[in-house]
Amino acid sequence: MRVQVVIIGSGPSGLLLGQLLGNAGIETVILDRSSREHILSRVRAGVLEEGTAQLADKAGVGARMVAEGLPHDGFSLAFDGRDHRINLFDLTGGKRVLVYGQTELTRDLIERRQADGRLTIYEAANVTPHDFDGQTPFVTYETDGATHRIDCDFIAGCDGFHGASRKAVPEKAIRTFEKVYPFGWLGILADVPPVSDELIYANHPRGFALCSMRSHTRSRYYIQCALEEKIEDWSDDRFWDELRRRLPAHHAEAMVTGPSFEKSIAPLRSFVAEPMRFGRLLLVGDAAHIVPPTGAKGLNLAASDVHYLFSGLLEHYQERSNAGLDAYSARAVARVWKAVRFSWWMTTMMHRFADTGEFGQRIQEAELDYLVQSPAASAALAENYVGLPY
Amino acid sequence: MRVQVVIIGSGPSGLLLGQLLGNAGIETVILDRSSREHILSRVRAGVLEEGTAQLADKAGVGARMVAEGLPHDGFSLAFDGRDHRINLFDLTGGKRVLVYGQTELTRDLIERRQADGRLTIYEAANVTPHDFDGQTPFVTYETDGATHRIDCDFIAGCDGFHGASRKAVPEKAIRTFEKVYPFGWLGILADVPPVSDELIYANHPRGFALCSMRSHTRSRYYIQCALEEKIEDWSDDRFWDELRRRLPAHHAEAMVTGPSFEKSIAPLRSFVAEPMRFGRLLLVGDAAHIVPPTGAKGLNLAASDVHYLFSGLLEHYQERSNAGLDAYSARAVARVWKAVRFSWWMTTMMHRFADTGEFGQRIQEAELDYLVQSPAASAALAENYVGLPY
Repeated sequence: MRVQVVIIGSGPSGLLLGQLLGNAGIETVILDRSSREHILSRVRAGVLEEGTAQLADKAGVGARMVAEGLPHDGFSLAFDGRDHRINLFDLTGGKRVLVYGQTELTRDLIERRQADGRLTIYEAANVTPHDFDGQTPFVTYETDGATHRIDCDFIAGCDGFHGASRKAVPEKAIRTFEKVYPFGWLGILADVPPVSDELIYANHPRGFALCSMRSHTRSRYYIQCALEEKIEDWSDDRFWDELRRRLPAHHAEAMVTGPSFEKSIAPLRSFVAEPMRFGRLLLVGDAAHIVPPTGAKGLNLAASDVHYLFSGLLEHYQERSNAGLDAYSARAVARVWKAVRFSWWMTTMMHRFADTGEFGQRIQEAELDYLVQSPAASAALAENYVGLPY
Repeated sequence: MRVQVVIIGSGPSGLLLGQLLGNAGIETVILDRSSREHILSRVRAGVLEEGTAQLADKAGVGARMVAEGLPHDGFSLAFDGRDHRINLFDLTGGKRVLVYGQTELTRDLIERRQADGRLTIYEAANVTPHDFDGQTPFVTYETDGATHRIDCDFIAGCDGFHGASRKAVPEKAIRTFEKVYPFGWLGILADVPPVSDELIYANHPRGFALCSMRSHTRSRYYIQCALEEKIEDWSDDRFWDELRRRLPAHHAEAMVTGPSFEKSIAPLRSFVAEPMRFGRLLLVGDAAHIVPPTGAKGLNLAASDVHYLFSGLLEHYQERSNAGLDAYSARAVARVWKAVRFSWWMTTMMHRFADTGEFGQRIQEAELDYLVQSPAASAALAENYVGLPY
């Protein structure tokens, strides 16, 4: 088989890239080692920047997102027993974010790809990119014990942090930067109305908490926890009690609780690999960089990679120019570091670290106090939260 | 002897308070354990916020400061081989800072106090505040082995971090917050023209550097160093070489070097004591809080304390209201934490720490890059640098 672009990974970035390329008449195959059911069962982030939503719309999957997504014009920062709204809309001259589950976006993209009759091969084992340093790259994979080969012009590595794409690059060709945070997020999903119409990011001496949602009837709550914590030690009651202790009293009192139907602990990591292009292999999203979830930049960063790569591939096929592809890594990496910085900063400001101590707690509160009081500082926070320009 | 206010400490904050009170007809005595010569030999900071300069002018010592001080409308952030100017004047709607040595300001204040015939007692040993919890406080001190007593209405503790004022407060009445940074600043003074008309704050993988000045012909340069470093290991040549390595090439090449006439290593510390009032004892400046020198907030923070305390004392004596004195600690502390946060943030962003590593270095560069590119982030930096409003 031969296609123009092989996309490794059927997560939102691979699907989005495939859809944009397909709409432009560029042929793709998507390979994924998981099943469609597994992909759709993964619980992921849910706050889309305007640029991400626009890209989804451009890809032709905006209808349900616009109908069911919740536009948010602001969020709250809670600390020292108070909370303060960051008015994203006013601070950014009219920008907002859209709360819409990544899983829902993935579903929309999968359904659209299927309706368009474009090929995705699920449960492809040992997916491996080859010869991407030369002019004739190809990808091999196995199904039912048989090895298959797809020849192509380009390989897009959209297969995440643990995927085969980055691992196919010789170690000496790649430079990595990493920070592992010494805590995790214990998160639950519950069919209870959210405590607030908007997200609440809470700094507390007992640790960070986040009140988020999927819809008007489904809440997504998180509390910072030690990495050694075990899910089975956290009954729903214990979770709700701990969450309430970390919120200002009026939120704690207003909170509606109920049984959770998903509960998990996620570690937090910052990771950047440079460059993002190796000949005809191009890394996208989590394959090249990971951010902690604070500030919801992961999916949005993958989307901006897709934007840069799509425009580079379009230029290659439609204008016979490689300028966009040659610039891909530098353009993407520049924006990556900005989002990595923002996520690191929000994580550092909002979480309790082993060495935070009383000085650190007061510094965090002083920073939050300054942030909400200074129009300039609020605007800097807001412009990052809604997404820096592509 | 009896006066209205005993001021402990003849540094700039004590002198400034004494001058403002004296001009308003409120009688003071200043006590200092050091000699006048020693006080005038101390090398200190040299960047005044507009509020500080205005306060000095209001105190009647603005003439030489205005004539000889260098107004600065901006400064540079150097990193990753580049440098970028922060245009303070434009970013703050017309504010600037004034480069004028703290030692010069102290000299002006001492001379003015002497000319006004107001009493300062130097080399006063064992200065001790008494009975400040009641209505009749007094201060004792010793000269030539004899103990003296001054009765007063109020005691202003302007005697610095190691002074007697804070130490006189029972431990259980005071809460302290502290961070000691694991490095120092090796600084020199040299009679060479400054490498730039404005200050340059440099982030470099080898450590922080700062190019400052006292005048058009006198430079003040600093490099971050380990606390264990010894002055005698740092020849002038070694200092200049290391400084040049940490600056962008065009500055390193343009630098004029020469013999230093002062060379010292200063540790960096953040410290806050709360509250700042204990009955009739009021702490001012370094007696209550210390900031690292990054961003030049120390003297300016002492000046804002003086502003709040002076207005409280004036209200007490002129309007027979204690509202301003009752609010002193809360008002001063609120501004203190903002400056402590800013100094901590600039220190953290600009210095190399043991755990900075490659990720941390890139985060610092990403933060600096964002700072100089984003008008909102630049404005937040600038409003702190010129001084938040009183």
